[in-house]
Amino acid sequence: MTFAIPEDLETPALVVDVDVLERNIATMAERMRERGVRLRPHAKTHKCHEVASRQLEQGAAGLTVASLGEAEAFAARGFEDLFVAYPLLAHGPKAARLRSLLERVRLSVGVDSLESARLLAEAAGSELLTVLVEIDSGLRRTGVSPEAAGDLARACGDLGLDVAGVFTHAGHSYREPSAPAVVAIEEHDALAAASESLRLSGVPARTVSAGSTPTALRSASAPVNEERPGTYVFNDRQQVGLGSATDDQVALVVASTVVSTAVTGQVVIDAGSKALTSDKPAWLNGHGAVVDLDGVPVGSLNECHGMVAIADGPPPPLGTVVRVVPNHVCTVVNLFDTYEVVSNGKLVDRWPVTARGHLI
Amino acid sequence: MTFAIPEDLETPALVVDVDVLERNIATMAERMRERGVRLRPHAKTHKCHEVASRQLEQGAAGLTVASLGEAEAFAARGFEDLFVAYPLLAHGPKAARLRSLLERVRLSVGVDSLESARLLAEAAGSELLTVLVEIDSGLRRTGVSPEAAGDLARACGDLGLDVAGVFTHAGHSYREPSAPAVVAIEEHDALAAASESLRLSGVPARTVSAGSTPTALRSASAPVNEERPGTYVFNDRQQVGLGSATDDQVALVVASTVVSTAVTGQVVIDAGSKALTSDKPAWLNGHGAVVDLDGVPVGSLNECHGMVAIADGPPPPLGTVVRVVPNHVCTVVNLFDTYEVVSNGKLVDRWPVTARGHLI
Repeated sequence: MTFAIPEDLETPALVVDVDVLERNIATMAERMRERGVRLRPHAKTHKCHEVASRQLEQGAAGLTVASLGEAEAFAARGFEDLFVAYPLLAHGPKAARLRSLLERVRLSVGVDSLESARLLAEAAGSELLTVLVEIDSGLRRTGVSPEAAGDLARACGDLGLDVAGVFTHAGHSYREPSAPAVVAIEEHDALAAASESLRLSGVPARTVSAGSTPTALRSASAPVNEERPGTYVFNDRQQVGLGSATDDQVALVVASTVVSTAVTGQVVIDAGSKALTSDKPAWLNGHGAVVDLDGVPVGSLNECHGMVAIADGPPPPLGTVVRVVPNHVCTVVNLFDTYEVVSNGKLVDRWPVTARGHLI
Repeated sequence: MTFAIPEDLETPALVVDVDVLERNIATMAERMRERGVRLRPHAKTHKCHEVASRQLEQGAAGLTVASLGEAEAFAARGFEDLFVAYPLLAHGPKAARLRSLLERVRLSVGVDSLESARLLAEAAGSELLTVLVEIDSGLRRTGVSPEAAGDLARACGDLGLDVAGVFTHAGHSYREPSAPAVVAIEEHDALAAASESLRLSGVPARTVSAGSTPTALRSASAPVNEERPGTYVFNDRQQVGLGSATDDQVALVVASTVVSTAVTGQVVIDAGSKALTSDKPAWLNGHGAVVDLDGVPVGSLNECHGMVAIADGPPPPLGTVVRVVPNHVCTVVNLFDTYEVVSNGKLVDRWPVTARGHLI
C-alpha cells in the first residue's frame, strides 16, 4: 500500500515518506552486512544530503556519484568518501577541480581508457588518486572487457595511480522483468573474471564493485565485496515491475491535482513531462501509475499535463489530489528543487535536492 | 548549418546562439505584424527574462506562461502582461497568489470549466480578472468544444470575470510530419466556431488566440488575432522534422563530450537523459542529432550517458566536444540552470533559466 500524503499540498510536488525511506535504507544495509559486502549507495538517485546522511548512519561506507559536480556538492556538505562511478575526463577546468577535491576528501574515480588514466594522473599531481577500472558486464555502454581489465589496471599503476579494483554497472538488468536474475549472474561472473585479470597482472583488486538495484541482492557474494545500488531508497514503478520492490517499499510519489475534466473519458492532472519525465522502458505502459485512480497509468504527457483515461461514470472532482508513482525516480527527482517530507500522512520537513542538475 | 560553439566549454552545457535567436524572434514578429496578428509568445520554452525581453522589444504584446509560478517569476523581472494558458485551479494558497499577482500585473488566465471559473472569481475578489475560454481544437487534452464556448463565456461573465475571448493549443500538430498543414485548418476553424459561439451568447471575443510553433504561420488569419508559439525562439530536431524550421534556425544545442570509446562501434557522450530528456515523438529515431558526427541520432540514453553508433574506422578522440540538437527543447531547457550564450563561436554571456522548475 502506498503511503498517505497531506491533502493540502500545492502540486505537482515531490513527496517522500521518511518512514518508508528509512526502512528501505535499513533493509538494504542489513542485507549487505549479512553478506559481508560493503554498501556504497549511488547518490545520483536522491542528490540529497539528508538521504545520504541516513545511508551513512546505517553503515554505508561512502557514496557513489555520477559527476564531479555531484562530488563537489556532497563534499560541501561534509561527505568525505566519494566514488565518481563515471569515465571522468580530467581535462580543462575539470583537472583543477579534481585536484581541489582530492585535497579535501577521499576520492576515487572510474577509468575505462589509458588516455583518461593519463589525464587523471596528470590532474592528481603529487596527490594519490584512487581509480577503479570499469568493466563492461553486458550493458555495452562503457568499460573494458573483463579480460582487458588487468592490462589497464597495470597501466594505471605505472602512471602512479592507486588501483583499488574493478567496478561495473549491469544496467541491462532493466531490459525486461525477467532480466535481473540472469543479469545478476553475468554481472557477478564478469567481475570475477576482471578480478582474476587484475590478479594475473600483479595488481590484486581490493574492491570488486557491482551496482544496480535490481541485481544488488543477487550479485553480492565473493569476489564481489561492494554494491552501489541507488534507486532502492525510493523505488519506483520500474523497480516494482522488475520485482525489486513491493508497493509498500515505494517511498516517493509525485502529488498531482486533477485540473481538467473537460474532455470526456479522461482527466488531466498537473503532472506532465516536466514533473514525471518521459522515461519509459518498452515493457511498461504509460508514464507513471496513478495510485488514487486504481493504479491506471498516465497515458500520455505534455509538459504540464498528464492525460489519464478513466472508466465510465463521473470523473473525480476537479481539485482531487492524486499520488503518482513515477516510472523512473532518478530523473524525476532531478526536476525538482525540494522534497516535501511526510510521515503518517503529515508534512514533517522539506529537504533540498542538494545536487540537482549538477551534471558537470 | 548549425552555429559554432567554443571548444573549451565544460559539458554537458546548454548553448544558445544569440544571433540565431534574435533572428528567429525578429522573423516571427515580422510575420505576425504582416498578418496583423498579435504575438504573445509562450515563455515556457525559454523560461528566461533575457529571451522574453528580446521578444517584447520586437513587439510581442505580452507573454504566455504555463503556471502561476512562471507568472510570478516573470512578474518579479518586471514583465507586466501575462497570460496563464492553463486551466488554473485557484484553490488553497493559489487563490492568494493569484490575487497578489493581479494587484501587480495585467493578468489573464485560461478556464475550461464552470467550477474553475468560480474559484477564479472568488480568488480575484474586487479585482477584475480577465479569462479566456479554452477550447479543444482536436488535441483532446483540455478545453470545451467550440460550440460550448459561448455558454461557459456567459457563465464567466455572470460571475464577474472579464471574458477576453477564446484560446486553444493544437498540439496534435506534432503527431507526424504531415500534421501541421491539416491541423492548422482544424485549429483555425475551431477558433472561428468558438468565436461565433461567444458572439451568439452575447459575449463577443476580443481575443481569438491560437498557439503552436508548427501551426503559427498557417492559422494566423481572421478571426484569429493572436498567436502564442513558444519553440520558435530556439527550434529543435522535432521542429526541423515538422518543417517548421531549417537547420539554420536552430538556436540551441546541448554541447557534450565524448567520454568513452571502450565499446566497439559506438562512442559515449556525457549528455544522457538528465541533459536531453527522453522526449521522443514516435516518428523520430533516437534522442537528439549529433551534428558533429554526421547528424546521427543518440541511439539510447542513460542518465549521464548518451550512446552514439559510429561508422567503421577510428572513433573520434576522447574529449571531442560535439553539438547535439535535442528532440524537444522546452523540456531540455528545464533541466539546466544556465544558458551559455555564444556569438560567432565565442562565449559572450551567461543567462539564468529564470523560471526553471516553476511548475506550481
